[in-house]
Amino acid sequence: MAPASPRVVVKVDLKKKPWQQNQPLHNRWHPEIPSVAEVKANEFFRVEMVDWTGGAVKDDGSASDIKSIDLSTVHYLSGPIKVVDEDGVSAKPGDLLAVEICNLGPLPEDEWGFTGSFDRENGGGFLTDHFPCATKAIWYFEGIYAYSPQIPGVRFPGLTHPGIIGTAPSMELLKIWNERERQLEENGLKSLTLCEVVHQRPLANLPTSKGCLLGNVKEGTLEWEKIAKEAARTIPGRENGGNCDIKNLSRGSKIYLPVFVEGANLSTGDMHFSQGDGEISFCGAIEMSGFLELKCEIIRNGMQEYLTPMGPTPLHVNPIFEIGPVEPRFSEWLVFEGISVDESGRQHYLDATVAYKRAVLNAIDYLFKFGYSKEQAYLLLSCCPSEGRISGIVDSPNAVATLAIPTAIFDQDIRPKTQKGRVGPRIVRKPDVLKSTYDGKLPITKNPSSRS
Amino acid sequence: MAPASPRVVVKVDLKKKPWQQNQPLHNRWHPEIPSVAEVKANEFFRVEMVDWTGGAVKDDGSASDIKSIDLSTVHYLSGPIKVVDEDGVSAKPGDLLAVEICNLGPLPEDEWGFTGSFDRENGGGFLTDHFPCATKAIWYFEGIYAYSPQIPGVRFPGLTHPGIIGTAPSMELLKIWNERERQLEENGLKSLTLCEVVHQRPLANLPTSKGCLLGNVKEGTLEWEKIAKEAARTIPGRENGGNCDIKNLSRGSKIYLPVFVEGANLSTGDMHFSQGDGEISFCGAIEMSGFLELKCEIIRNGMQEYLTPMGPTPLHVNPIFEIGPVEPRFSEWLVFEGISVDESGRQHYLDATVAYKRAVLNAIDYLFKFGYSKEQAYLLLSCCPSEGRISGIVDSPNAVATLAIPTAIFDQDIRPKTQKGRVGPRIVRKPDVLKSTYDGKLPITKNPSSRS
Amino acid sequence: MAPASPRVVVKVDLKKKPWQQNQPLHNRWHPEIPSVAEVKANEFFRVEMVDWTGGAVKDDGSASDIKSIDLSTVHYLSGPIKVVDEDGVSAKPGDLLAVEICNLGPLPEDEWGFTGSFDRENGGGFLTDHFPCATKAIWYFEGIYAYSPQIPGVRFPGLTHPGIIGTAPSMELLKIWNERERQLEENGLKSLTLCEVVHQRPLANLPTSKGCLLGNVKEGTLEWEKIAKEAARTIPGRENGGNCDIKNLSRGSKIYLPVFVEGANLSTGDMHFSQGDGEISFCGAIEMSGFLELKCEIIRNGMQEYLTPMGPTPLHVNPIFEIGPVEPRFSEWLVFEGISVDESGRQHYLDATVAYKRAVLNAIDYLFKFGYSKEQAYLLLSCCPSEGRISGIVDSPNAVATLAIPTAIFDQDIRPKTQKGRVGPRIVRKPDVLKSTYDGKLPITKNPSSRS
Amino acid sequence: MAPASPRVVVKVDLKKKPWQQNQPLHNRWHPEIPSVAEVKANEFFRVEMVDWTGGAVKDDGSASDIKSIDLSTVHYLSGPIKVVDEDGVSAKPGDLLAVEICNLGPLPEDEWGFTGSFDRENGGGFLTDHFPCATKAIWYFEGIYAYSPQIPGVRFPGLTHPGIIGTAPSMELLKIWNERERQLEENGLKSLTLCEVVHQRPLANLPTSKGCLLGNVKEGTLEWEKIAKEAARTIPGRENGGNCDIKNLSRGSKIYLPVFVEGANLSTGDMHFSQGDGEISFCGAIEMSGFLELKCEIIRNGMQEYLTPMGPTPLHVNPIFEIGPVEPRFSEWLVFEGISVDESGRQHYLDATVAYKRAVLNAIDYLFKFGYSKEQAYLLLSCCPSEGRISGIVDSPNAVATLAIPTAIFDQDIRPKTQKGRVGPRIVRKPDVLKSTYDGKLPITKNPSSRS
Repeated sequence: MAPASPRVVVKVDLKKKPWQQNQPLHNRWHPEIPSVAEVKANEFFRVEMVDWTGGAVKDDGSASDIKSIDLSTVHYLSGPIKVVDEDGVSAKPGDLLAVEICNLGPLPEDEWGFTGSFDRENGGGFLTDHFPCATKAIWYFEGIYAYSPQIPGVRFPGLTHPGIIGTAPSMELLKIWNERERQLEENGLKSLTLCEVVHQRPLANLPTSKGCLLGNVKEGTLEWEKIAKEAARTIPGRENGGNCDIKNLSRGSKIYLPVFVEGANLSTGDMHFSQGDGEISFCGAIEMSGFLELKCEIIRNGMQEYLTPMGPTPLHVNPIFEIGPVEPRFSEWLVFEGISVDESGRQHYLDATVAYKRAVLNAIDYLFKFGYSKEQAYLLLSCCPSEGRISGIVDSPNAVATLAIPTAIFDQDIRPKTQKGRVGPRIVRKPDVLKSTYDGKLPITKNPSSRS
Repeated sequence: MAPASPRVVVKVDLKKKPWQQNQPLHNRWHPEIPSVAEVKANEFFRVEMVDWTGGAVKDDGSASDIKSIDLSTVHYLSGPIKVVDEDGVSAKPGDLLAVEICNLGPLPEDEWGFTGSFDRENGGGFLTDHFPCATKAIWYFEGIYAYSPQIPGVRFPGLTHPGIIGTAPSMELLKIWNERERQLEENGLKSLTLCEVVHQRPLANLPTSKGCLLGNVKEGTLEWEKIAKEAARTIPGRENGGNCDIKNLSRGSKIYLPVFVEGANLSTGDMHFSQGDGEISFCGAIEMSGFLELKCEIIRNGMQEYLTPMGPTPLHVNPIFEIGPVEPRFSEWLVFEGISVDESGRQHYLDATVAYKRAVLNAIDYLFKFGYSKEQAYLLLSCCPSEGRISGIVDSPNAVATLAIPTAIFDQDIRPKTQKGRVGPRIVRKPDVLKSTYDGKLPITKNPSSRS
Repeated sequence: MAPASPRVVVKVDLKKKPWQQNQPLHNRWHPEIPSVAEVKANEFFRVEMVDWTGGAVKDDGSASDIKSIDLSTVHYLSGPIKVVDEDGVSAKPGDLLAVEICNLGPLPEDEWGFTGSFDRENGGGFLTDHFPCATKAIWYFEGIYAYSPQIPGVRFPGLTHPGIIGTAPSMELLKIWNERERQLEENGLKSLTLCEVVHQRPLANLPTSKGCLLGNVKEGTLEWEKIAKEAARTIPGRENGGNCDIKNLSRGSKIYLPVFVEGANLSTGDMHFSQGDGEISFCGAIEMSGFLELKCEIIRNGMQEYLTPMGPTPLHVNPIFEIGPVEPRFSEWLVFEGISVDESGRQHYLDATVAYKRAVLNAIDYLFKFGYSKEQAYLLLSCCPSEGRISGIVDSPNAVATLAIPTAIFDQDIRPKTQKGRVGPRIVRKPDVLKSTYDGKLPITKNPSSRS
Repeated sequence: MAPASPRVVVKVDLKKKPWQQNQPLHNRWHPEIPSVAEVKANEFFRVEMVDWTGGAVKDDGSASDIKSIDLSTVHYLSGPIKVVDEDGVSAKPGDLLAVEICNLGPLPEDEWGFTGSFDRENGGGFLTDHFPCATKAIWYFEGIYAYSPQIPGVRFPGLTHPGIIGTAPSMELLKIWNERERQLEENGLKSLTLCEVVHQRPLANLPTSKGCLLGNVKEGTLEWEKIAKEAARTIPGRENGGNCDIKNLSRGSKIYLPVFVEGANLSTGDMHFSQGDGEISFCGAIEMSGFLELKCEIIRNGMQEYLTPMGPTPLHVNPIFEIGPVEPRFSEWLVFEGISVDESGRQHYLDATVAYKRAVLNAIDYLFKFGYSKEQAYLLLSCCPSEGRISGIVDSPNAVATLAIPTAIFDQDIRPKTQKGRVGPRIVRKPDVLKSTYDGKLPITKNPSSRS
């Protein structure tokens, strides 16, 4: 007889704050955050997690919690989990940790989520210069489906996945991160102009002890101070996986993570009920608490066997992924294209980011014609199972990027029509997303040709 | 009784040169290139086309034709085709032209294609600083399948599509193109540094009368001289569609093209038996001659109805697409990730182009471990049905891009393995792609960590 | 704020027997079994259920529980549930009840199931004349995946569904059922010879008070005696839906059930983690306890609107179904064919049942060549996501039926091979299914040509 | 350089009659029909074929050709084709012939097809007792799509396949066929009653020299007379494959055929642009002329390696199939169910044929509510990509069969609806299928409950 259920190795209590959990959470990457649990290779286990803000965003009628959010505290992660083989020997630096997602989902009794865009001066998002206000939409789950009172007329099955899954960095890797991000922060505005084109946001988030939560390392100790000063923020994805936001990492997926420290020290969090490629509004998935049911295998010496570093050191690697066999099935897609010419008409050189921005703006304005507000469309494209593609990246000077939307998520037919008899655009949809005022002073980008 | 077959409106003779065809081809965009055929809305018609180089690349054992190719002559397009409604009234500027691809394929008796990368100083490609030599692989077709003597061990069904389909620009739109590309050419290197990061290639290809072919406009006339000086190159995709290289535009797809001139003047060419997202090696699809079977509808006033300009004028629009119902079905995918840190370890800001480059480099090095040369992998990823995604584009400073490869195209299991008994990496595969020497002087980027 | 979770309207306690549950279960169809719960249209609710045998089959090392099972007690159903509209008005006879399966799964802490074939003289199965012994295999669940210690080398994602979902019959419909099944039992062997060809099993299971469980109707009362004598067995699917065993009724499916009694009186049970088309071994799915999360809508007068009776009365109808969007995705299938010629070589006339039997036997013998015992293959085809098709049913005298198996469920490549170098048949697989002796006297059909 | 195109080994001229072709066709199975072409293993070759009636059915406005068709002449097959290995050694009895369908389609200039049901007294069909008249619908092809002037409001991509593909039987196998079918013909009505339940049609079609065409065997010779008397009709599928009508044998499929005679002698024909599972109306696919592009491999001794006979001799085998990777993709299906209770209300025992008949009748009556005539629905379900499943075949006494229809083939939403505002049933559709009178005397089955 096999055990009938996964062993719960991290349990969370949603009535408690992140720092009050029995197995304390953490919100930074650092090799010295001690593991809170241990699993064996091939063991089937369960990890629970709070939402990425640790409960800071509420199921209520206002976006003010989004506007005033303290982003120094995100993302709250469960773990680290130490992984050992069947003989009890730890995963070692140089191994590859194969993590299979056998199942996942929302936590029972907490079956809702939220999508939002941050205030331009507190986090922003991909289109923050067009949409500077904090906005929020609440989603309720009916089994596999999500619907939102703020975005009527859509209902779709979730392609649920963890936004963050990664191993702990070694000190050497951590230093590489801190150094290169610091250089960007210091010199980026001089040498790179992409920021000014896409949106004016902070270039990077360097380590800060403000808001820092370090698991079993006790606040106030010297150790805490040291680690807090060094530990990397969890915002960007990096060599250890982390916040890669790959929306297809759902049931049955496998993630091959490089191991940098003894025991691998796997952490995970930022559960998404659903997300579109790009997660464009930043708080862009349907964010929720949740659980993962996992199985790990250790591929000894797998980094050398399967990965090739791409950069100056052997640590410049990336994880590999396999996609699982149960994803929502859509057969009809409407596709929007963007080229690397920006809203001012300026030509950029093979810039996929600019091209994707234009594709997304095209899609938003298209949905506006079918009765959605632009904020509704922005949040919807951020969290529904839309696909963002790099279609062409060689034909100078235009990169071509595309955004594909499954038409079945709408209760109306959103395709262009030649026959006049059919239902066309201009359905009035109410209500709108929750929205705060924008009190900042940065200039807002308007599309001169766009209506509304 | 309906007509049993599509009416052939453009026929090509592969034994003739592009400029010798009965209905002359063209290789520039200009409103004054006269239409060579006329079709009615809802008529089912057929258009044949030469390969994009017009036969300059041969099914032989050398890459020297690729190395010495004259890129001023590409792409050879069939058309323009004037579209009128059932009453004979032309499509008008402001309309939307819905083009359905009912069928397509290679031309009978010419069932082969080629994939190549250009010499770094004559065209280059996405990874030209890593792979500066001209290379070539020949593909033969067995019905839906392609295989290459130069890339053994793979065979896959084609997701065949036209690389280029577009309407003629108006003079106003043409001027916008020429102006913005000229500005990039002149000022780009001062303000943009993406070029230096991705690869050092010409920033844009401005109009030139060298190599110019203008359909029924007779060379040597004043009209020809004028048009040749103004006409836009076909290399990049733009507002009229054109070289968008969207690999999913296969059987059953619909393309909603903006109409800028009386009659729409639809042109198409650059047929691809198969292509991966990004078409990374530039001559990156399986390039071939071919045919399209099409049906057009005119959506009167459709540009205002369905498109929103994204830029300073009402002409700054992009086409919309619907994907067709018959694509090759793959259930297992292996996914490679890249973040916006380049090979030197430098951090870039949310740069999807850099992130995608790293994902592609990761995939190439991975396949190298399974017995492929890096050039084989580069060409294969360029032309097989791989998917390139923008997975995360908000988590500063790292954009996350992914490249997914369907595992079923390989005759070996390319997934990472934990069980030692199974077949693993290190199969020796021969022969290699056809390759020329690189005689240029630009520095070649090496990955310091990469083997071979 | 919406309620965060479904309301639990039927809860089961797996430590209790079916007749000890707080909301008592039932195992018969009868209009007078009172409802145990009430739901409103569009309410999101949850129903739990025991496995179809109510716990009679154990996770142990013997098939003796299967051999000696008391089939008079199956299937234990949850319900009936009365459905009312938003105004509290009951569903009425003539309405259509649309039931959406929003989610489903095993019960937490009970994540295992079983597949078996019954002893030929106590239930039998589709191939009982070939496989007369009681057999059993246990399956354990790792999230979406199932694996069995008795059938090594396979692991597959479940297409989980309820085997039984139906509305209560009216007295008139119940009488039609009892009458036609009684006629078959009495006269079937004289006029129909299919039974002798397929397998010698009881022709029908008529009402019996033995083993009868009637929910809130108290045993020993006159009412109980009356109902028990009249109530239909749950074995076959009928006009009310019931035991239709349609394997695709998984997450997101909709079932349009005819309403025969006031309140509809919906009952459900017989949860399957996975099942192949046909459920051939009778106890053929991966049987388990579980839960359903449902939403109902009432389509007033929908029976007349959407159904046409097929038979002498307006009650001779069948439900309609819509398949949901999240099913396991398989791209490669191996297909076995059968024609309506039986094992003795006798020709039957367009008999899809005989043809399907031959297709299944072909598949079993094929898998035998890859190291599986025939009993392992029989149970596996019964419960894995295989597809059973009626391919041709007009070309006299042969019906053509096919059985398609997804190749990805096996850890070896089971396709025929031409290249000798590859892994071929004849892997030795151990152990075998749990098996009892067959002590009956009915002759066993042997395939004279079959090995082993 | 590989050959650019497949070698054409059988060419047909549609202006000539079947018996006038250069490489004469045949319409019987017999080992002594000489091969008309030879191919090597791994050679890529092309076979053309006439439609199954050899041009007897016309693209005109009447069903009289269907009514008066001479069924003794069908099906006209191309071949036999002898297969040898790379060394020129023939395929031998006991080998397995792996035939890959690399491509297929209609013949250029003949891009139309027909679907019909035969007169009850000249061929009939699955529902001939309900629909005794000869009917016909013409389909025109627009690339991958078919549409019919007689069945408006539907258009769908074809899942094109050959209805017939098979190897020549040996004399021994031929005798088994003739003997078992003769026994059915002689004794069937005494012992089997399925015929009377399903439809009253001839039980089998025994050899007859009437209408016989035998390829290169010259009519009038003694050899011709002998073969004509012995040769099996092509109507049913049998051990050699033949008329298996498996609708998924499209591009990329592989068929593993047993070899019974030296050289295998492969024949093929009966091309279908599209067909539903069951091909219920008999002339039920979209019948057309066409071509196949094939590759063969010989698996030496493959019958013993991979097949197990199911019957008294080693010849009682069936082919195996692999499905190809490019099938039309549908995500939404409406499913109709049938149980083994017939239209008179009589209970049958686990009879999948009766259950499938009821499922089909349910679907026809459902579509009738959406504006289609029942004849339109009958022909449509026969030829569109509908799926026929054996869902449950063990729960005595009811077999459960299902018919699933992809909803995307209709231009209206055919799902049941709860919201009154939406478009519902009762669209009037015109015109109707072409129809002849029924002048026979057999009683017609009416559904007493059905409207119209």
